[in-house]
Amino acid sequence: MKIHEEKRAPNPRRVRVFLAEKGIDVEYQQVNILDSEHKSAEFTRLNPLQKVPVLELDDGTIICETVAICRYFEELHPDPALMGTTTIERARIEMFQRQVEFSLFQPIAHCFRHLHPAMEKLEVPQVAEWGKANGERALAGMSWLDDQLKARQFVAGDTYTIADITALIAIDFRKVARIEMPDELTHLKDWHERVSGRPSSQA
Amino acid sequence: MKIHEEKRAPNPRRVRVFLAEKGIDVEYQQVNILDSEHKSAEFTRLNPLQKVPVLELDDGTIICETVAICRYFEELHPDPALMGTTTIERARIEMFQRQVEFSLFQPIAHCFRHLHPAMEKLEVPQVAEWGKANGERALAGMSWLDDQLKARQFVAGDTYTIADITALIAIDFRKVARIEMPDELTHLKDWHERVSGRPSSQA
Repeated sequence: MKIHEEKRAPNPRRVRVFLAEKGIDVEYQQVNILDSEHKSAEFTRLNPLQKVPVLELDDGTIICETVAICRYFEELHPDPALMGTTTIERARIEMFQRQVEFSLFQPIAHCFRHLHPAMEKLEVPQVAEWGKANGERALAGMSWLDDQLKARQFVAGDTYTIADITALIAIDFRKVARIEMPDELTHLKDWHERVSGRPSSQA
Repeated sequence: MKIHEEKRAPNPRRVRVFLAEKGIDVEYQQVNILDSEHKSAEFTRLNPLQKVPVLELDDGTIICETVAICRYFEELHPDPALMGTTTIERARIEMFQRQVEFSLFQPIAHCFRHLHPAMEKLEVPQVAEWGKANGERALAGMSWLDDQLKARQFVAGDTYTIADITALIAIDFRKVARIEMPDELTHLKDWHERVSGRPSSQA
């Protein structure tokens, strides 16, 4: 099997960190997005929506979408569990994963895509007003997450899960999107230091 | 248990159709979004992100997020399976569910939220240029889905799944967002007729 990805993009990193936590090695093939390699006929055959990452199995089966790829590996390699071990845990972790995705990861991504000069040819049209509105939403998302982290060590509870991975990569990508983290978000900062200290964060 | 929802909003309908397919009856409590009831202190305690639907279990456990709620019921009531029965099926269905969500459901929702006068006080700021860009994306998403449906009866394969539910509700919500479906998308139209004919579509 191999994973088609773009090393610099945030979604592929979610899969790399997930696999690093599980100790799984996979072959990676780079797709240079700034050179529009994701729009090539060859890559479009793998994913008509022209997005990375894409998992290609040895029998040719294609699995696109970060969380679908993660779930595939979670089922094949359940230890350590990153998506929960009981029905309630799985539902709650999926809840937090999606809340982080929609309230933090996406606003930061939109802020970057709609305001950063590097995205001028890739995000058409760039809508600066929408980028700015998402800068505000990212701040609200960070404040919400800080509040959640008052009560517990990790995003979804007492153990590290896929929700922490989505949040870590959102918070790191914040720098590229030029969004400051307010000093008063001390729970978020402590958590960020904690998860950044794990070897997987280097993936 | 009960589900806090807004009858007119598309995300709660995803849960209602999912439960109708499984034949599960749940008590619903309405949260009037146009009257800002989702911003009340009482609702904010259930979901600090102020979004519907929210599943409240009898022991007080809260599960927010449409797909997390669906997965909870899928595990408790696996028949009929709407999220797959094997590892590969579950990954592929999740892939399609997310692709429909990001490439069709979200663009249609953004088009509505940023262009419709009814959303003026709820979507701040309304960014008309972003709404228009999403009208274009919704067309691209419909064209992609039409192409997918050339080869099979349902979005993710030969059986009806959660990916069909997300797509059905996106396509129906298209009318509220004032997006036309192009006549040439015959596979999409045939599929839409097929899934609209199921009793669950009335939920």
